[in-house]
Amino acid sequence: MKLAIVMGSISDKEIAYKVIEILEKFEVKYEVKVISAHRSPELAADFAKCAEKQGIEAIIAIAGKAAHLAGVIAAMTPLPVIGLPVKSSTMDGLDSLLSVVQMPKGVPVATVAINGGENAGLLAVQILSVKYPELREKLKDYKKKMTEDVIKMNKELNEILKK
Amino acid sequence: MKLAIVMGSISDKEIAYKVIEILEKFEVKYEVKVISAHRSPELAADFAKCAEKQGIEAIIAIAGKAAHLAGVIAAMTPLPVIGLPVKSSTMDGLDSLLSVVQMPKGVPVATVAINGGENAGLLAVQILSVKYPELREKLKDYKKKMTEDVIKMNKELNEILKK
Amino acid sequence: MKLAIVMGSISDKEIAYKVIEILEKFEVKYEVKVISAHRSPELAADFAKCAEKQGIEAIIAIAGKAAHLAGVIAAMTPLPVIGLPVKSSTMDGLDSLLSVVQMPKGVPVATVAINGGENAGLLAVQILSVKYPELREKLKDYKKKMTEDVIKMNKELNEILKK
Amino acid sequence: MKLAIVMGSISDKEIAYKVIEILEKFEVKYEVKVISAHRSPELAADFAKCAEKQGIEAIIAIAGKAAHLAGVIAAMTPLPVIGLPVKSSTMDGLDSLLSVVQMPKGVPVATVAINGGENAGLLAVQILSVKYPELREKLKDYKKKMTEDVIKMNKELNEILKK
Amino acid sequence: MKLAIVMGSISDKEIAYKVIEILEKFEVKYEVKVISAHRSPELAADFAKCAEKQGIEAIIAIAGKAAHLAGVIAAMTPLPVIGLPVKSSTMDGLDSLLSVVQMPKGVPVATVAINGGENAGLLAVQILSVKYPELREKLKDYKKKMTEDVIKMNKELNEILKK
Amino acid sequence: MKLAIVMGSISDKEIAYKVIEILEKFEVKYEVKVISAHRSPELAADFAKCAEKQGIEAIIAIAGKAAHLAGVIAAMTPLPVIGLPVKSSTMDGLDSLLSVVQMPKGVPVATVAINGGENAGLLAVQILSVKYPELREKLKDYKKKMTEDVIKMNKELNEILKK
Amino acid sequence: MKLAIVMGSISDKEIAYKVIEILEKFEVKYEVKVISAHRSPELAADFAKCAEKQGIEAIIAIAGKAAHLAGVIAAMTPLPVIGLPVKSSTMDGLDSLLSVVQMPKGVPVATVAINGGENAGLLAVQILSVKYPELREKLKDYKKKMTEDVIKMNKELNEILKK
Amino acid sequence: MKLAIVMGSISDKEIAYKVIEILEKFEVKYEVKVISAHRSPELAADFAKCAEKQGIEAIIAIAGKAAHLAGVIAAMTPLPVIGLPVKSSTMDGLDSLLSVVQMPKGVPVATVAINGGENAGLLAVQILSVKYPELREKLKDYKKKMTEDVIKMNKELNEILKK
Repeated sequence: MKLAIVMGSISDKEIAYKVIEILEKFEVKYEVKVISAHRSPELAADFAKCAEKQGIEAIIAIAGKAAHLAGVIAAMTPLPVIGLPVKSSTMDGLDSLLSVVQMPKGVPVATVAINGGENAGLLAVQILSVKYPELREKLKDYKKKMTEDVIKMNKELNEILKK
Repeated sequence: MKLAIVMGSISDKEIAYKVIEILEKFEVKYEVKVISAHRSPELAADFAKCAEKQGIEAIIAIAGKAAHLAGVIAAMTPLPVIGLPVKSSTMDGLDSLLSVVQMPKGVPVATVAINGGENAGLLAVQILSVKYPELREKLKDYKKKMTEDVIKMNKELNEILKK
Repeated sequence: MKLAIVMGSISDKEIAYKVIEILEKFEVKYEVKVISAHRSPELAADFAKCAEKQGIEAIIAIAGKAAHLAGVIAAMTPLPVIGLPVKSSTMDGLDSLLSVVQMPKGVPVATVAINGGENAGLLAVQILSVKYPELREKLKDYKKKMTEDVIKMNKELNEILKK
Repeated sequence: MKLAIVMGSISDKEIAYKVIEILEKFEVKYEVKVISAHRSPELAADFAKCAEKQGIEAIIAIAGKAAHLAGVIAAMTPLPVIGLPVKSSTMDGLDSLLSVVQMPKGVPVATVAINGGENAGLLAVQILSVKYPELREKLKDYKKKMTEDVIKMNKELNEILKK
Repeated sequence: MKLAIVMGSISDKEIAYKVIEILEKFEVKYEVKVISAHRSPELAADFAKCAEKQGIEAIIAIAGKAAHLAGVIAAMTPLPVIGLPVKSSTMDGLDSLLSVVQMPKGVPVATVAINGGENAGLLAVQILSVKYPELREKLKDYKKKMTEDVIKMNKELNEILKK
Repeated sequence: MKLAIVMGSISDKEIAYKVIEILEKFEVKYEVKVISAHRSPELAADFAKCAEKQGIEAIIAIAGKAAHLAGVIAAMTPLPVIGLPVKSSTMDGLDSLLSVVQMPKGVPVATVAINGGENAGLLAVQILSVKYPELREKLKDYKKKMTEDVIKMNKELNEILKK
Repeated sequence: MKLAIVMGSISDKEIAYKVIEILEKFEVKYEVKVISAHRSPELAADFAKCAEKQGIEAIIAIAGKAAHLAGVIAAMTPLPVIGLPVKSSTMDGLDSLLSVVQMPKGVPVATVAINGGENAGLLAVQILSVKYPELREKLKDYKKKMTEDVIKMNKELNEILKK
Repeated sequence: MKLAIVMGSISDKEIAYKVIEILEKFEVKYEVKVISAHRSPELAADFAKCAEKQGIEAIIAIAGKAAHLAGVIAAMTPLPVIGLPVKSSTMDGLDSLLSVVQMPKGVPVATVAINGGENAGLLAVQILSVKYPELREKLKDYKKKMTEDVIKMNKELNEILKK
């Protein structure tokens, strides 16, 4: 099982690391690339057209502003494409979100929250888990762990409030 | 292979039909339910917790306004959940979109465009296609068909402009 | 008389402290919990279903982004639920506000301003004051005190302007 | 037990009827008034200052655009005030919502969804139910009824889909 | 000739200073007050009702969030009221702007830009200049001065670019 | 006493009629012109520069979209300029509002609500009333009339509710 | 001299006709094509890469929602690309506008108003006029004609107001 | 070949430098001026009316808030005008963007992204390249360079990830 993470610019790498952290936790292989839909359209097309053949099973595309990367790739591959909109220095991420999610009929992009690196990774794992049952089990563990973390937060809160 | 379509109210059924049309075109089995996160929370919990066991492989949740349905279900199942925000009578769909897509860390919802029934269906098929190669082939055909439709539109346009 | 304050994450605790400060001023008992609608949905359901029996008379739910906590709890209790939307790192609080306030027909959430901890506390006191006349009197004193503070501000301003 | 419904203009009466329908279902007494914060400020002040003495236990204020009615009343009474923002002909209700909900520190307004007449009524009933246990029971029945309606919607949906 | 500047909280004083600086430049007398529409509604009513008799000829009201101050005063005086919306910590000033400018039919507020202290002062001077010709002349000088400042900026720019 | 009403296009005339109705009620003389800041910039400049000399005492500028008319005129006259933003076919009036109200330092525009023809007229009368005491008296009568209209609405409402 | 007009779907043809009307008035040759960035990405790439060689001197791209067409073409041609965002059934055109205008560094799109067909045509003519002086003269005539139209509107308005 | 860069205030000079850097890279001559549409309207008119005669072939106008500079100039010249909206201290640039792009029928402004200095410069070069083939070649080189930069970013990324 293998994923690809593509980002519009190396300046998006902090967001990409959040995706990577999740994928490593779930032991999912991935490759990471900088591909700009606008500054390197041929790289984008080459990547999108070959992704399936190279064994990639889903793609996470990270981009900001008029964020076309996810849509451009989704146009050229039958693979599921996850769009991760990035907040840029103006418009508080609304431009990125709308550019990623409001795809016209025929070419969906599975959009997650602005700057939501962890969720993009988790959604990719959920998608792969349709095929790989071991990931399904790990996702259930992850959910349990999240509940336990909330319980721990309550203990921590009680400690704080006692003082 | 089997999907579930859930909608917050029967008034969302026109949007659901657009999802169904895609699923039938791709010969994917589905069940359809009205489940309100707010008016029938126990139905929602029962559905979400049992979905995996009942052989459902992905869920499409359709809702408007403070649209919690997709998120509430995603909280209780490891399956991938597609969120389809519906435009309501105020706020032009922005409330629905933000309520669906801006999920906090740990529980992603794969969000598509406001009222994007076809795209929700197609994304579900793409997700299943990770496991079922026959869907992958159909998706490629669908993409070819879309390109042919664009070519036909050009002929149609030429006819119109000649007049 | 007893209130519950629930917050989606321990990172919301600064906002919760503002609620607590008001409740202590009005000598209203409260319990505080971290409960995530998404990461601990069963905790949320258990809490919401038992709140009334445990003598809680109103609930304040603090959450950000696709802020479902107030709505999820309101779906499972007949108690009045106050929603306190939190500004997160993107979208300037608009996502939280719309996710909390735009509840569909049948399940209201009494929403206050983004990050409005004091007002959430005061609204809770106002709601309890329907039953407990001593709170009503304290609220009147509080209002008087606010007017006096404005008068003091005028003196302060005059001092500043004289210089 | 008695509520007051005030609206900024008689043109808001369709929204007020939705509130009234809920109050009559729950057998809560109410009075209804047109009071404009801007065109009849003294009426507003007289009403707000006397409301408590006249046995009113909560107030629902309906207004649109720069919707100050709820806030102006809340400034002059210790009673809980529910704000019901109305969508006007421009700005899709966003102006009304922000004018009602974004109250400064010290004077909360319990805001419900834009045009959410039913929810304003239900919230008022929930607030009164803190004092009147019979309303609490009716609210539980109302919740059950909502769940049953969802179940009926499912039957209706199945009928439609069979065809 | 005399103006009044009222602000919702002493925390708005930096914005008020910008108004004052303009009024002093134009030698217009003014009084400054902290008056909260919500925390001191009677002060607001007393001020608004007496303003005309006390020789005040126009009022500048400074407030943020659900900024009702200008509207509340305009409801109770025939004097022209200038509304100066203040950017608060959430919503980037949009809530203040809409609460001030979107006044319903019958009660206008002359709204200037968010945080636009200078412009509120200048608008007040323009309004007074309808009656006081000496202010009209000063306004013309002010306009000339602004043009000269632009010309100076060009020189400054040329200096910078030469380097 | 004399006002000028200028509108960006004859298609804004319905809004202009609402201004005119107010001015005629207050017996204020006016002239009306179509002047486009963009399609007839020289007309705009000629008008703005000569307005004061022609005895005009305040200007109401009506425009939509990137609504520069009020600002362009305000740049070339010391007279107070009232900006009346018009809702166009896209963006629900937000573009017009921001283009009119967010004027940079030095050149204010007294902005009223989107499509707020009556309020633009009333604000103009308030501004003139600084000089003409008879208008002040009429404004007080107008305010009284508005309160009486609210009282009438209450009677009307009671009639409706009795049925 | 030759332009290309491309639109994302034949449903955008009404907007395209407004562009065409301008181009015919200025006697500029054009070709019109339906090309979807998402449903026919290879057509888009072929078109964009060959446009310059085929003598096209500027491109007008018409699209709505997550409107990538202009950006995708601009990525693959050195020609100036004019982006014309189309209002779709949700979000009032804001999604289209931001997707077209907020292009990242390196690949500009010359964006005009939402649904602004005439302005897209006129901008194309202005761009060509840098090279073709006869277009410059026609543009001056067009500007004169616009001023004359405003003058005619004034006559029309006077006729109406006399009645 | 010659361009003009005009900015509304010297405080916009950082954005202007980004434009200049591009123009110098492409060896396009330019002049730079501070011209405020509002504080120096006659300078703006003089500049706009004479620009063509002085050999200027396109104009870049930089402004923020109610950013009329580009539109005011476009009204008075047949030259193509590029609008560069600047993010100011409130509204996150949305006011500037809408004031620049939403121009009414007849007077287009070629708008680029908020704060998009480089893109304004590149668009100007693209427009000139319609006439000057040497710029076309440089643009192709620039595009190649951008792709190479993306390839370099990939190497850089690989270095980082290896660690």
